[in-house]
Amino acid sequence: MPNRLKGGITAPKGFVAAGIHAGIKQTALVVSERPGPIAGVFTKNTIPAAAVLLDRQHLKKRLGQAFIINSGNANAFTGSEGTKNTVETARLVAAALGIPKQYVFVGSTGVIGVPLPMPALRKGIPILASQLTKTGHQHAARAIITTDTRTKTIALQQRIGGKIVTIGGMAKGSGMIHPDMATMLAYLTTDAVIETKSLQTMLRKAVEQTFNCITVDGDSSTNDTVLSLANGKAGNRTIGSTGSAHVQFQNILTEACHSLAMDICRDGEGATKVVKIQVNEAQSQKAAKSIVQTLATSLLVKTAIFGADPNWGRIIAALGRSGYTLRPDRIVIAFNQSIIVKDGKGLGPRIEQQIQKIMQRPSFTISVSLGMGKGTATQWTTDLTYDYVKINASYRS
Amino acid sequence: MPNRLKGGITAPKGFVAAGIHAGIKQTALVVSERPGPIAGVFTKNTIPAAAVLLDRQHLKKRLGQAFIINSGNANAFTGSEGTKNTVETARLVAAALGIPKQYVFVGSTGVIGVPLPMPALRKGIPILASQLTKTGHQHAARAIITTDTRTKTIALQQRIGGKIVTIGGMAKGSGMIHPDMATMLAYLTTDAVIETKSLQTMLRKAVEQTFNCITVDGDSSTNDTVLSLANGKAGNRTIGSTGSAHVQFQNILTEACHSLAMDICRDGEGATKVVKIQVNEAQSQKAAKSIVQTLATSLLVKTAIFGADPNWGRIIAALGRSGYTLRPDRIVIAFNQSIIVKDGKGLGPRIEQQIQKIMQRPSFTISVSLGMGKGTATQWTTDLTYDYVKINASYRS
Repeated sequence: MPNRLKGGITAPKGFVAAGIHAGIKQTALVVSERPGPIAGVFTKNTIPAAAVLLDRQHLKKRLGQAFIINSGNANAFTGSEGTKNTVETARLVAAALGIPKQYVFVGSTGVIGVPLPMPALRKGIPILASQLTKTGHQHAARAIITTDTRTKTIALQQRIGGKIVTIGGMAKGSGMIHPDMATMLAYLTTDAVIETKSLQTMLRKAVEQTFNCITVDGDSSTNDTVLSLANGKAGNRTIGSTGSAHVQFQNILTEACHSLAMDICRDGEGATKVVKIQVNEAQSQKAAKSIVQTLATSLLVKTAIFGADPNWGRIIAALGRSGYTLRPDRIVIAFNQSIIVKDGKGLGPRIEQQIQKIMQRPSFTISVSLGMGKGTATQWTTDLTYDYVKINASYRS
Repeated sequence: MPNRLKGGITAPKGFVAAGIHAGIKQTALVVSERPGPIAGVFTKNTIPAAAVLLDRQHLKKRLGQAFIINSGNANAFTGSEGTKNTVETARLVAAALGIPKQYVFVGSTGVIGVPLPMPALRKGIPILASQLTKTGHQHAARAIITTDTRTKTIALQQRIGGKIVTIGGMAKGSGMIHPDMATMLAYLTTDAVIETKSLQTMLRKAVEQTFNCITVDGDSSTNDTVLSLANGKAGNRTIGSTGSAHVQFQNILTEACHSLAMDICRDGEGATKVVKIQVNEAQSQKAAKSIVQTLATSLLVKTAIFGADPNWGRIIAALGRSGYTLRPDRIVIAFNQSIIVKDGKGLGPRIEQQIQKIMQRPSFTISVSLGMGKGTATQWTTDLTYDYVKINASYRS
C-alpha cells in the first residue's frame, strides 16, 4: 500500500509550481528540473480545443518538461487565431524557462469561443516563471479550477525497485463530467525512472478505470486532458512493461487517478452524493458498459438518488431502455448489501425503508446482476439536484 | 387543412367513453359501437409491461373495439401475476360490453412493480361500462393522466373520399419522455373506412415524426403505447395504401399525433419551454438523428435554455461529443432566424442579446447546419428546471 502524503503536484523530487492571476481567471505553471518521458490521454470530442491539438503534436516526441494551464478561457472554437495563441503561449513559457518549446504542454479550461487575452499572458508568464517553488502546488491547483468549489490534489509514495517513488497530481472539473473524460484536466508528476512507452500504456489503463468511469451530467468537453510526466529523479531501476515494479507503479498511478476522479465527482456541480453503479453478469463487456452508462446518466435515477427514494422501478425502466435482452426473473438489484429486487419482484416496504437510510449517505453502491453472462462494468455518478440546475442556468461555461 | 373541433376521443362517429376512480388512481374506457381495424406502436423497452405484451398479442388479429386504461399502476415487472391480471382486465371489459376479449386493448401507467388491485377493477369495470357516453371524452382524458398537469386531447375533421372523416385522440405523459416513445400513452379513434395494413403503416409513420421526436428527460418507459382504432362509420371510399385520400388521411393522423406530442412536451415535468432543434447538412440521416439527440438531451443545453443563456459553446461541445467528424468553419448555428455562429466563430454580444430575447419565449427553434452532407433531423426538447428535480426527487413513479 502506498503512503498518502500531504502536498500535490510538486511532491515528487525535482518539480516546482506556481499559480497567479493573469488576465483570464488564473494560470498555473508546473516545471520539472529536467525533461523526461511524458504520456497523455485526450478528449474524444471531435471539435477539440487548440491546446489539445498542440499537446497531441508535442506528445509525438514523448518528452516533456512543463505544463502551462489557464482557467477561464477554453480557447476552443477559436479557429486559426486560437491555434496561433496556443503556440505563442508555449513559446513564451519556453523562453521564460530556457527550454525547447516542444517540451511545453498547454491546457485550457473555461468559456468556449473567446480568444485568449494574449497581452495578459505575455505579461503573466515571466512572472509565473519567477515564482516557481516547491510549495507552489496549492497555488497551481487553485489556478486551474473554474466552477469547482475546492482544489483537487494527490501525493502518493511507495518503495519501487529499491527506491522511494513519488506521484503527485492535481485536477480540475465539476461539470461536463462524463466518460471519455469530462471537462476535466488532470496533471500527474512522478520522479520514477520509467520507459516512455510503459508510461503511456499505464496512464491509458489508469484513465480507463478512473476518469473514464465518472459521470456528472453526461457532457464531455472540447478540452479534456490527462498528462503524466516522469523525470527519473528517484533513481529506481527502470520500470518497464512487465514485472513487479510495473505492477506497483500501475497501482499507485491508478490510485492517484482514482483519488482525483472521486474528488471531481464529489465536487460535481450541485452534487450531494457520489454513487458507485456496478453491472454484473451482463451478456458481454459491451453490454455491461452500455447498461451501466444508461443507469448512471438516467435523470430519473439521479433525481431518485437526490431524493433518497428507493425507486427501483426507475432502474428497471432504464435497464430495459438500454436495448439489451433481459430476463426479469434473473435480475438482482442491491443497494450496498441490501437486495431489493430478486426473482422478478420487489422485496417490499421493509427493505425499502432500510435502503432509504442507505441512500441518505453521501456515498453508496447500487449493484445490478443480470444473470446473462460474464460482462461487468462500473461507473460513478452523482445525484441531480436543484443546485445543478441553478449553477448551469446562469454560469457561462 | 383539417378543421380543429372541440372534443376528443369520442369526436368521430360511433365512439363513447367514460372515466372513473377505480381503486388505483383512475380508469378510462373507450368503446366503438362496432369493431374495426386497429394499429399499434409500442415501447422498445426490453422489459415491457404486461399490457404491452397483451396488446401486441391482440393486435395480431388487427381488429379492435375497446380501450381500457388505468393510471397509477404500470403493472410492469409484476411477473406472471401481472400477466394474469391484464388478461382478467380484458376479460372483465369484454364481459361488461358483450364483445370478444381479443377486441379489448389494455393500457397501464404509473408505479412499476406493484400488482394491479384487481378487486377494485372487478367492481369498477361494470360501472365504467354503464357510464359510457358521447361526452365522456373529458372524463376519459382525465382518468389516464399521472404527473400531467392537464389533459391532452385532439379532434380533427376533414372531407376525405367524399365524406367528412373525423379523428379523435387523447394522450398522457410528462416525464420519462424520450424517443422510442416516452412514458406516454396515446389513443386515436377515427370513423374513417380504411384498410388495416394502411392504418398500421400510416400510424407508424405519424409516430416516427411526432411522438418519437420529443424528449423531456431521456428516459423511455416500459409501457409506452400508441393505438389507433377505425370503425368505418364515416362511409367514405376505403382509404388504401396510395392515392389522395391516403395522403389526406396521413396528414390529419400525423397532425393529430403532432398536436398530442406537443401537448406532452409543453406539459413536460417542470418544463417552461418547448424548443425545436433542427440539424441540417449532416453527413447522413443517421448522423443527423444521433447529433440532434445529443443536443436535445444535453443537460448543459437544457439548463442554458431554462436560463435563456445564448451559450452556443455548449452546443459546440455537444456537437463534438456526438463523435461525428465536423468542420468548425462550416458550422452555422441559429436561434429562429438569428445566426450566432458562422465561419468558425461566434458573431458577438450584440447578436447574443437578440438571442437572449428569443430564448425568453415559450418556444423557439435552434437550427444547426453542418455543411457535411444532406442528413436532416428534428427533435423537440424542453428546458431542465428546478421543478423537474423537485417533481422527480419526490414522486414515486
